[in-house]
Amino acid sequence: MTKYTDFINYHLSMLIDETRTGAYSRAVSKVVKPGDVVVDVGCGSGILSFFACRAGARHVHAIESEPVINIAELVAAKNGFQDRITFYNASSFNVDLPEPADVIVTETMGTFGFEEGILGSLTDARERLLKKGGTLIPHGVELFLVPVELPQFYEHVIDFWVNRCQGFDFSPVRHLTVNNFHPLKLHEGTFLGDPLRVQEIEFGETTQTEVKAGFTIHVRRQGWLHGLAGWFNAELIPGLSISNGPQDKASHWGLAFFPIGRPVSVDRGNRIDAEMSSSQNGEYWHWNVSVNGLRFEHSSTKGSLSSSPPL
Amino acid sequence: MTKYTDFINYHLSMLIDETRTGAYSRAVSKVVKPGDVVVDVGCGSGILSFFACRAGARHVHAIESEPVINIAELVAAKNGFQDRITFYNASSFNVDLPEPADVIVTETMGTFGFEEGILGSLTDARERLLKKGGTLIPHGVELFLVPVELPQFYEHVIDFWVNRCQGFDFSPVRHLTVNNFHPLKLHEGTFLGDPLRVQEIEFGETTQTEVKAGFTIHVRRQGWLHGLAGWFNAELIPGLSISNGPQDKASHWGLAFFPIGRPVSVDRGNRIDAEMSSSQNGEYWHWNVSVNGLRFEHSSTKGSLSSSPPL
Repeated sequence: MTKYTDFINYHLSMLIDETRTGAYSRAVSKVVKPGDVVVDVGCGSGILSFFACRAGARHVHAIESEPVINIAELVAAKNGFQDRITFYNASSFNVDLPEPADVIVTETMGTFGFEEGILGSLTDARERLLKKGGTLIPHGVELFLVPVELPQFYEHVIDFWVNRCQGFDFSPVRHLTVNNFHPLKLHEGTFLGDPLRVQEIEFGETTQTEVKAGFTIHVRRQGWLHGLAGWFNAELIPGLSISNGPQDKASHWGLAFFPIGRPVSVDRGNRIDAEMSSSQNGEYWHWNVSVNGLRFEHSSTKGSLSSSPPL
Repeated sequence: MTKYTDFINYHLSMLIDETRTGAYSRAVSKVVKPGDVVVDVGCGSGILSFFACRAGARHVHAIESEPVINIAELVAAKNGFQDRITFYNASSFNVDLPEPADVIVTETMGTFGFEEGILGSLTDARERLLKKGGTLIPHGVELFLVPVELPQFYEHVIDFWVNRCQGFDFSPVRHLTVNNFHPLKLHEGTFLGDPLRVQEIEFGETTQTEVKAGFTIHVRRQGWLHGLAGWFNAELIPGLSISNGPQDKASHWGLAFFPIGRPVSVDRGNRIDAEMSSSQNGEYWHWNVSVNGLRFEHSSTKGSLSSSPPL
């Protein structure tokens, strides 16, 4: 194996995700007019920039900090777009453009919407790179959460670390796994209540760079609460959305599972109070869950492998 | 998802690979004597260092360049080894020790044995860090190859890129995928001939830092040749080996699939001539395959996403 194998196959999985790619194709073709200047924030393999060229964009500024930008450049040349796309191998925060853009397009959504930093990067790009009255794709994102019962995953990935492994105590690793959120394919049979929309952000207006939501969900059936599952719905243009929610079986994202410290037995009618908040730009999430007199406090900052482990 | 989720789960997959972990446990317990000084090159989550402590090592020098070393430190403290293990967050090439080691242990084998650089790092560590007459675990690695028929994988991962995707020509990406080797779970039904041992390296003696092998394999049945599949066998101590070969169903590694430029129809008795060679330390591989008058030349250096794409 080489490190590039995983990388290319990850981009393959995104390109063949028709929910994602097809929706962006339709949105860009409706918004971008011949002669427009377009910015693609986090262009990846370049597909959104190519959609913009096909829609008649006069010029596309495609920004990507990862090496995948080399693939985008190769494919752009192969398709005859090399004179209409300028590639920037950089973070969008560090890019200035020679002209303001008519449209900014981005697909930098993570499993729970914001952890790739879209809130900060899109707000910055809107203020510095977009014409007044220009269009953002997506223009808004909603976040959803639901309490879930996931005994197998919890046992295999969280509680694996409390068992002795080869005779040694690996329990400190559990602290890391229970303070991270995990991408998972989930079906609605795991839900213990009704999904709740806990946040809505309009990128064209917002000045916030953090997300904060408090909410209550009532349990609908007896079971064990293992945590919350979250997803996003991004409205690309009015009436055209993409989501990694439970109804989207083919999404390459999966849902985001936020575990709690230990499983809690719950009954129909029990009340779950929770607060979700992000660090600036949404890269890290904090989640607090109170249920049946117990309170759990978690944060993906505590799940990171920084050089000063926060244990 | 956070980047740490994948990372921790990858180390989980290695720890629960009993072929790998159990064999190292037995090898270390047989070699390491009370009072020994041990070096663990690329210690990962620390399991080999803990085996060495359990076997009575007086001191272990555990070297790891990745952030997973923080997990190793936490687990070491939890198990009471904090005074007996010194951790170095560095490449082993840059580490000097206060005392020569009795034993060097490492599990830095990739799918095709050498791509994590074991040949260079172990030779360097042997010369600089090991006592004369000290022991290396593993002391040697063999490499095996077999011609394989893999129509589905070839179509989905290699030839995906020759089809138009969302109306665009992504064919330059095929050049990258066909010049990488891919980790794959394979069964013997895909084999078109008998596996051949193409290389054997004894780490205690070798001065070579590159691998080079030329060989011929005869086709045993009619089919389509899509490339070669490779694996390693590492002898940890005499009589105790680990392998990611086809007989090891539970290996976390899988086999390494080296594709050729296009499928070739072959018949029983056809001759396949091939040369495999590595870059220095084995990080990159070059593979040339001649069959039925056709010759294919590939290299994972051509499959890299460097800033100057070598197309």
